[in-house]
Amino acid sequence: MKNTEKTMDKLVALCKGRGFIYPGSEIYGGLANTWDFGPLGVELKNNIKSAWRKKFIQECKYNVGLDSAILMNPQTWVASGHIGGFSDPLMDCKACKTRHRADNLIEDFDGTNCAGWSNEQMMDYIREKGITCPNCGKADFTDIRQFNLMFKTFQGVTEDSKSELYLRPETAQGIFVNFMNIQRTTRKKVPFGVAQVGKSFRNEITPGNFIFRVREFEQMELEFFCKPGTDLDWFYFWKDYCKKWLLSLGINEENLRLRDHDQEELCFYSKATTDFEYLFPFGWGELWGVADRTDYDLTQHIKTSGQKMEYFDPETNEKYVPYVIEPSLGVERLFLAVITEAYDEEQLEDGTTRNVMHFHPYLAPVKAAVLPLSKKLADKAGEIADELSKYFCVDYDDAGAIGKRYRRQDEIGTPFCITYDFDSVEDGCVTVRERDSMKQERMPIADVKKYIEDRIAF
Amino acid sequence: MKNTEKTMDKLVALCKGRGFIYPGSEIYGGLANTWDFGPLGVELKNNIKSAWRKKFIQECKYNVGLDSAILMNPQTWVASGHIGGFSDPLMDCKACKTRHRADNLIEDFDGTNCAGWSNEQMMDYIREKGITCPNCGKADFTDIRQFNLMFKTFQGVTEDSKSELYLRPETAQGIFVNFMNIQRTTRKKVPFGVAQVGKSFRNEITPGNFIFRVREFEQMELEFFCKPGTDLDWFYFWKDYCKKWLLSLGINEENLRLRDHDQEELCFYSKATTDFEYLFPFGWGELWGVADRTDYDLTQHIKTSGQKMEYFDPETNEKYVPYVIEPSLGVERLFLAVITEAYDEEQLEDGTTRNVMHFHPYLAPVKAAVLPLSKKLADKAGEIADELSKYFCVDYDDAGAIGKRYRRQDEIGTPFCITYDFDSVEDGCVTVRERDSMKQERMPIADVKKYIEDRIAF
Repeated sequence: MKNTEKTMDKLVALCKGRGFIYPGSEIYGGLANTWDFGPLGVELKNNIKSAWRKKFIQECKYNVGLDSAILMNPQTWVASGHIGGFSDPLMDCKACKTRHRADNLIEDFDGTNCAGWSNEQMMDYIREKGITCPNCGKADFTDIRQFNLMFKTFQGVTEDSKSELYLRPETAQGIFVNFMNIQRTTRKKVPFGVAQVGKSFRNEITPGNFIFRVREFEQMELEFFCKPGTDLDWFYFWKDYCKKWLLSLGINEENLRLRDHDQEELCFYSKATTDFEYLFPFGWGELWGVADRTDYDLTQHIKTSGQKMEYFDPETNEKYVPYVIEPSLGVERLFLAVITEAYDEEQLEDGTTRNVMHFHPYLAPVKAAVLPLSKKLADKAGEIADELSKYFCVDYDDAGAIGKRYRRQDEIGTPFCITYDFDSVEDGCVTVRERDSMKQERMPIADVKKYIEDRIAF
Repeated sequence: MKNTEKTMDKLVALCKGRGFIYPGSEIYGGLANTWDFGPLGVELKNNIKSAWRKKFIQECKYNVGLDSAILMNPQTWVASGHIGGFSDPLMDCKACKTRHRADNLIEDFDGTNCAGWSNEQMMDYIREKGITCPNCGKADFTDIRQFNLMFKTFQGVTEDSKSELYLRPETAQGIFVNFMNIQRTTRKKVPFGVAQVGKSFRNEITPGNFIFRVREFEQMELEFFCKPGTDLDWFYFWKDYCKKWLLSLGINEENLRLRDHDQEELCFYSKATTDFEYLFPFGWGELWGVADRTDYDLTQHIKTSGQKMEYFDPETNEKYVPYVIEPSLGVERLFLAVITEAYDEEQLEDGTTRNVMHFHPYLAPVKAAVLPLSKKLADKAGEIADELSKYFCVDYDDAGAIGKRYRRQDEIGTPFCITYDFDSVEDGCVTVRERDSMKQERMPIADVKKYIEDRIAF
């Protein structure tokens, strides 16, 4: 059996055609790589977030949740370094007037990763290697200027600089500024973590690859506070925890690689960083970053705010600023990995092909579809759908041949199809068909809820 | 038994002290009425949203979900009227230089609601009645200027007007622009609705009353598309549906009033609007607006985009632009109503008082607390907590006298406390104490999950 060729075009077409993802503001010609999650997309996205919250908060005795505001006091971004340093190195081609990121030009040229390079280093490299404009082929660039990636807005009635605000470029800082509040109110002892799901915004110069690089996106971030000296142990603990979580959701280990940053690539404050990369249809792309950020963030906020943010350890009577391990994951990127992984054009024995999304049942947007074999059976089948919808997201479909209806559900990854037929009226049983094996099983209507519940458990 | 006096001060203190809500960016002196939802707040907020999604999407055969982008093509706001008309009437006091909303000055003066008044009408009324500055007492105001409430930002590398964007002031427009995409991909027939939960932003001049009026907030909006002529029936249907939902979550009918807009107050395009108002500690405040918006929104988008947005009715072979019923609810406002409703200082028979939050169990941030009677029992009790946390948000507390631990859980509204004692080791049973009745019941450990599950069902 040959492997399915998974292309971005196929994924985008499926997403748009079945209501996972539409281009944002499409009736107005869109808006530079914004996307709207349709009826199925919002379910899948919510299930991804809820799978994360379940394993990183609800079931994890170390961690608690937070939902901090997108708009923060601008001093936050002074402390975090985003006002000073969160920028892209841009250069224009003098010949054709197109704009480029210098680091991307270099990486696309020979694969060199120039994280941490100065503008001068990049300029020198581009000149030395004779790197040319990808648009016109000339080698005539302006100098590099740094462009800040934060979206700026204004609060209050005037647009003067006093009321300048930023849309947060990451959720993490909302956790750091609340460290003391959370520790005090939860009475948590170090080590403990604070986990947050929320929107962030980055004014990317070149968004693209569908939902991979977007200007408005959701993050699932954990900041795990631990005692200095124990940080590398916890770094490995969370790296392992994150990897297991991805595998448990059906991500294939072959499509995942963990890339450790070497000394040159590491941020100056980080002791260790690992990027989880996934093999998307366009190549390897970053999915998850796990970093040992030392006490950098808390220390920056202590300096900038003048507040005490030390933890008093009641067991050793020591005071210290905790170190932080940060696993930071983008919801849209994981969404894209999940649909890439699930996508399949399956060759059947009869020579036909079925399109099927092999979602983990917990992630599947629709858990079960109720299909009456005839419209005459609509009333009773409808009752089953109503009853099951108290517990799961359920679809009801009475249009067309049963085989066609199975295919429609396969294509959106519904794990269970429940067929109500004329015998059902007599014997109180239905046929449940499983998506991946296509095997059918007859069972009492009363057993269906538990059958599904057991199989979607995560 | 006397009624508990519920004040904003008490609610704010509880929220801050127990980790429901902290002031945003507090270490930097805050940021004008932004708030961060702490470990308990995020659970309560998520439960509120999930209660809405359950009844308005999952269990409702008419509706599907959506999650559209915050950043939209600015033409959206031309069509919706927000660029032209979404503004507050501001005037400055010439004497003391403070800034005021003209409509608020009038309403605070004699209760007159001047929705729909022109600037001139408001100016005349203020002069005629001799309304004075609430700050300095003088009656010397500038003319009224309209101030647009949308937050503005800039996309891309320049701040010129071409790249001007707005943070959406409502989630509704994301639904309207996707009407055709959703109808096509879901094959839904009118009547059907699209429901969305998401952040919106309004640059309010005078945010206040804790989380009641904030600049960054979440909405739960439903846009229900129906055939013209059936709209008033659906308007009453949804009004009733919304009211029942609130009551089912434990909102007391005495604290709720439904105020129908009369002809003068109605927007020019609306056939009927009802405000659901809740009796907050500071007085009656709007919670939910239910409006018959006719075909105004879709028609505006048809005009502005030039796209066809008609529904073809396969039963009658008619084409028409559907009418829309919009129930629009603010998450933070309902959060505030829920904590107001739940708050209680209960006089006990022994003369003491216990603070207790009578949350609906489905909404309670923590469903159960596992309390070992002695630290020696930590291992076994910890196992129970771990097992239950697969299904619910569970707390574990082994610090202090059992009575004190009960009180701590009462104060955050935990419906069930599970005490593991020395007998438990022998008989495999635990004592489950119910929050409101304080009654205790002994049951096998194996039964606890189902016991809780049955009682938190919604």
